[in-house]
Amino acid sequence: MSQALALYGYWRSSAAYRVRIALNLKGLAYESRPVHLVRNGGEQHQPDYQALNPQELVPCLVDRGQVFTQSMAIMEYLEETHPLPPLLPADAAGRARVRALTQLLACDVHPLGNLRVLQYLGSTFQADDAMRGEWSRHWISEGFRALETMLAGNVATGRFCHGDEPTLADACLVPQHYNAVRWKLPMGDFPTIGRIVDACQALDAFRQAAPEAQADAPPPG
Amino acid sequence: MSQALALYGYWRSSAAYRVRIALNLKGLAYESRPVHLVRNGGEQHQPDYQALNPQELVPCLVDRGQVFTQSMAIMEYLEETHPLPPLLPADAAGRARVRALTQLLACDVHPLGNLRVLQYLGSTFQADDAMRGEWSRHWISEGFRALETMLAGNVATGRFCHGDEPTLADACLVPQHYNAVRWKLPMGDFPTIGRIVDACQALDAFRQAAPEAQADAPPPG
Repeated sequence: MSQALALYGYWRSSAAYRVRIALNLKGLAYESRPVHLVRNGGEQHQPDYQALNPQELVPCLVDRGQVFTQSMAIMEYLEETHPLPPLLPADAAGRARVRALTQLLACDVHPLGNLRVLQYLGSTFQADDAMRGEWSRHWISEGFRALETMLAGNVATGRFCHGDEPTLADACLVPQHYNAVRWKLPMGDFPTIGRIVDACQALDAFRQAAPEAQADAPPPG
Repeated sequence: MSQALALYGYWRSSAAYRVRIALNLKGLAYESRPVHLVRNGGEQHQPDYQALNPQELVPCLVDRGQVFTQSMAIMEYLEETHPLPPLLPADAAGRARVRALTQLLACDVHPLGNLRVLQYLGSTFQADDAMRGEWSRHWISEGFRALETMLAGNVATGRFCHGDEPTLADACLVPQHYNAVRWKLPMGDFPTIGRIVDACQALDAFRQAAPEAQADAPPPG
């Protein structure tokens, strides 16, 4: 039977990974439609996909024929159309805090390490793998330093980024942490982040959203 | 008399400019607290400001003693606490569209041209002014190309980005357009964007939020 929801994504895309976590936390079944970001010059640049998302980026969610782009906008849409379990707190100040934590990651960390940016650094500044690694670690480290302070120094932080239930902030944090590990960023300075990521990874919703658990991930080894 | 709301910003910061537009559209008075991003090695790095915002970025809104960071989170907070006039549509799909337009700009365009990124390009890749200009124009152009398609090809686009009243998408678009002009990006390929920016600039709320209208802007000439 076809699902109401279909997610165009890529196993290792942080932004798609976020949306998978949110879908899983809400218990929403969806059809997975992989878009290979590297093969064939990048399937996201092919006309069929470009027609869905003129930005030629993943993810993209289709809900009964309507197309939605931008991971944060998609997650807010899921929150409004499927309110339970909530992934934002009930109070305006709490919601603002969770959104600030998500935006810190989604605006000020993730886009700087995106594939298209790393490719452009290579072509324009002749950045090799080592330089791209240094660039990526720099921006993740800048973001995590501020995030660690904001999490460790606030009584609203609980088992998760905000209280004792996962929110959109955790859905953004875990993919960014995955990316940090991939770039071999030392995590010793970020104990609160590490503790919260561990709490998330104890949940099926997070584990089943992991890049390596996706059908389009390459076989291990 | 002291205002309930105080905004820490910088005249030329796109993110602060967005929040000024939203405050003006909602008719909310606020105290302006300039943070000079260049002088004294960057006032945003001083301990007093760092205590407010560990990211050491502007803007930062204080509402009766509570501190809020991240421009998009601040604007959603203003929308929730001061719902009229609305800056998001009433329907979930429309809200998702407006949020996707804002996130296209706030995640995939603006952070790449941010001061700290340009400074890092200079120190790490010896990028001079010309190279920083090319970098900035490239990412604005990529974003505007997609945005133009999303605006021109959708019946939901009206006088403004979504319908005939300004939304959060317009509050993000005008500062990004200001930045594009500053970097001398030719705007001929983006007629819908240009038309919407003109419609915005006809409104006092946008004009009074302009960088040059701020008390901390340098005198003209």
